[in-house]
Amino acid sequence: MGERFGVDRLSEADARRRTGVKWAQPEDGVIPAWIADMDFPVAPAIVAAVRERAELDLGYPVWLDRPQAGPLAEAFAERMERRHGWRPDPEHVRAYSDINQALQVLLHVMTEPGDGVALHVPNYPPFLETLAQMGRTPVHVPMRPEGGTWTFDPELIDGRCRVLLLVNPHNPTGRVLTRDELGRIAELAERHDLLVISDEIHADLVYEPHRHIPFATLLPERTITLTSATKAFNLGGIRCSVAHIGAARARKALAAQPAHLFGAANLLGVEATVAAWRHGDAWLEEVVGVLDRNRRLLADRLPPEVGYRMPEATYLAWLDFGGLGLDEEPAEFLYREARVMASPGPLFGPGGPGHVRLNFATSLPIFEEILGRIGRACTTP
Amino acid sequence: MGERFGVDRLSEADARRRTGVKWAQPEDGVIPAWIADMDFPVAPAIVAAVRERAELDLGYPVWLDRPQAGPLAEAFAERMERRHGWRPDPEHVRAYSDINQALQVLLHVMTEPGDGVALHVPNYPPFLETLAQMGRTPVHVPMRPEGGTWTFDPELIDGRCRVLLLVNPHNPTGRVLTRDELGRIAELAERHDLLVISDEIHADLVYEPHRHIPFATLLPERTITLTSATKAFNLGGIRCSVAHIGAARARKALAAQPAHLFGAANLLGVEATVAAWRHGDAWLEEVVGVLDRNRRLLADRLPPEVGYRMPEATYLAWLDFGGLGLDEEPAEFLYREARVMASPGPLFGPGGPGHVRLNFATSLPIFEEILGRIGRACTTP
Ligand SMILES: Cc1ncc(COP(=O)(O)O)c(C=O)c1O
Ligand SMILES: Cc1ncc(COP(=O)(O)O)c(C=O)c1O
Repeated sequence: MGERFGVDRLSEADARRRTGVKWAQPEDGVIPAWIADMDFPVAPAIVAAVRERAELDLGYPVWLDRPQAGPLAEAFAERMERRHGWRPDPEHVRAYSDINQALQVLLHVMTEPGDGVALHVPNYPPFLETLAQMGRTPVHVPMRPEGGTWTFDPELIDGRCRVLLLVNPHNPTGRVLTRDELGRIAELAERHDLLVISDEIHADLVYEPHRHIPFATLLPERTITLTSATKAFNLGGIRCSVAHIGAARARKALAAQPAHLFGAANLLGVEATVAAWRHGDAWLEEVVGVLDRNRRLLADRLPPEVGYRMPEATYLAWLDFGGLGLDEEPAEFLYREARVMASPGPLFGPGGPGHVRLNFATSLPIFEEILGRIGRACTTP
Repeated sequence: MGERFGVDRLSEADARRRTGVKWAQPEDGVIPAWIADMDFPVAPAIVAAVRERAELDLGYPVWLDRPQAGPLAEAFAERMERRHGWRPDPEHVRAYSDINQALQVLLHVMTEPGDGVALHVPNYPPFLETLAQMGRTPVHVPMRPEGGTWTFDPELIDGRCRVLLLVNPHNPTGRVLTRDELGRIAELAERHDLLVISDEIHADLVYEPHRHIPFATLLPERTITLTSATKAFNLGGIRCSVAHIGAARARKALAAQPAHLFGAANLLGVEATVAAWRHGDAWLEEVVGVLDRNRRLLADRLPPEVGYRMPEATYLAWLDFGGLGLDEEPAEFLYREARVMASPGPLFGPGGPGHVRLNFATSLPIFEEILGRIGRACTTP
């Protein structure tokens, strides 16, 4: 596993040379498994594209004010068609710095304070903060454990909502919604005349036999699709994401804004993204193989008291420590007793307390160490 | 000239390999001298920094949500102190995609439609468009030719204004405002309680014996300074600029906005900027030498009918073709008759018609060709 690009051979010393917030944050001796960065170096095809661009020309690109006419939109459309059978219209692509910016811009132009926004809980913490900060009313649709998976009651998406914020594949549970589930949601979106903002950033990290279905294939004219290469290709710093604005009224509202108010796509981020999407799949396949092995290792090696449902996508495991009878949040316990830094469940909203989100995007040697530490901490309390 | 980095030896064939909009726009055989991109390749120190960053880690940097605590703010503060004796407070730095975004954000949070914004004319066309698009009322302060230079009547900055948008060094005339001129402007800004937004993007391109004086040294608590490495280091595509928010009320207004609405600094843009500011000065010195030679060549070689005042900064020449008695705009004439693409004066607002802005940031062989073509077109009408 991880032969060609060597991602599975990475040592802890290799990872500690990384300079990002993931490894910088925890104190000495603690292994980070929190923020959604992988420990793997950037794919060679991406490094080469960035280097060549810098050597050639970093001036104003042809597409600067019209990313919909540039390589970003084209590479996005090609990839969606090739992998998911969906052909987006490149003319409807807008570029944003990051997914959360795109969400804030859309809420800013399409909703008012007080408007209801339906979303699953637990959910990606920055989205919960966005709704709180912008005074939009969250309408929670809880993810409930059921057997080996997670279900939810779509009927909670009701007339209180103006927007449905879908995160599919879902963070933190790793669910990949089925055609049935999406169909049910689409019906409700129609019934209540909702704008659907669909964050599909984890779509490249889906495990067999699950299949990602772009929501835009169900309700093309109601859906805004948000994605980027930053998760699957480990490019959190490049700030380059895509919004496909299927809804004509959202395109109109955006066009009425000052043209530069929300910034513009950056050339190096675009080059990195285009290289990832066009030339990164061999690397991605190797990485997904390692991640798939890791999600199975978790099932084998976690202490039996820890609740775990294997994610269908993402490199994130949503772990329930309720069975351990701790008198503190498990993230604190793990940090102190296991010297492993996971993301505290309460940040993810309702359903979060008693849980942690564990990032398993690392090599076998590092992951063995993480699993060993968690196992020992749980058995010698 | 241009020995170490070879910038002055660039051939037209070299320049034609560039992929940006500058060379892509004109039709075959036309030499571009319009948009403010230079023909020189990126400084080796910047290429190396970008490559090393991509090889090391493109994940979430430590400073992602707080660029004021990262290397961008620190490198900016160091540079201002070293070159201009001004020590900005890194805590007051915010990062934007580009200068025009920063301007739009500031106008959005600090003014209302209809508010007056004083600015010199002619001026950088995107700023004129910003005011028009956002419905802010331009209060024009005309630059008037006087002897070998340009002057203006500061008293035009009056009670109709809420904001003074200063572009210093000035595009397109290349004026570097003196301490006297700035002092007079500062007095008026105080008298009329103006917010001063000072675009100083050309400050690294000032020719001896002129000196750039940051406006923030005059009125620290009224001034917002906008700059980036993108002009002096030819990085138009990286989308990384700095706003130093000296005015407490502007910091407060920005803090009240959703935290991600305007995007975030991109890691590769930050690396390029920091490398430029910390390790790019040998390259910059060579480039400024070439530009200085070119602005003098223009004085020697332009046909006598063409009005030219040597710029004190920038690689832009503001040329008056009124003396030629053309019956069309000179940019059209030059494009057709000289096969040189300059920026049409009318885009720069009042004072623009009859003029072109000529970009002279190129090597001797290319510039000789441009000068020869213009000379021939003007003498054989
Ligand atoms: C569901 C989801 N959306 C968006 C993001 C943020 O991505 P970025 O900040 O790179 O745009 C993440 C990152 O973990 C995520 O999990
Ligand atoms: C005065 C002035 N401000 C701002 C800019 C724009 O710079 P950028 O788009 O790289 O932020 C330019 C570019 O020519 C300029 O001349």
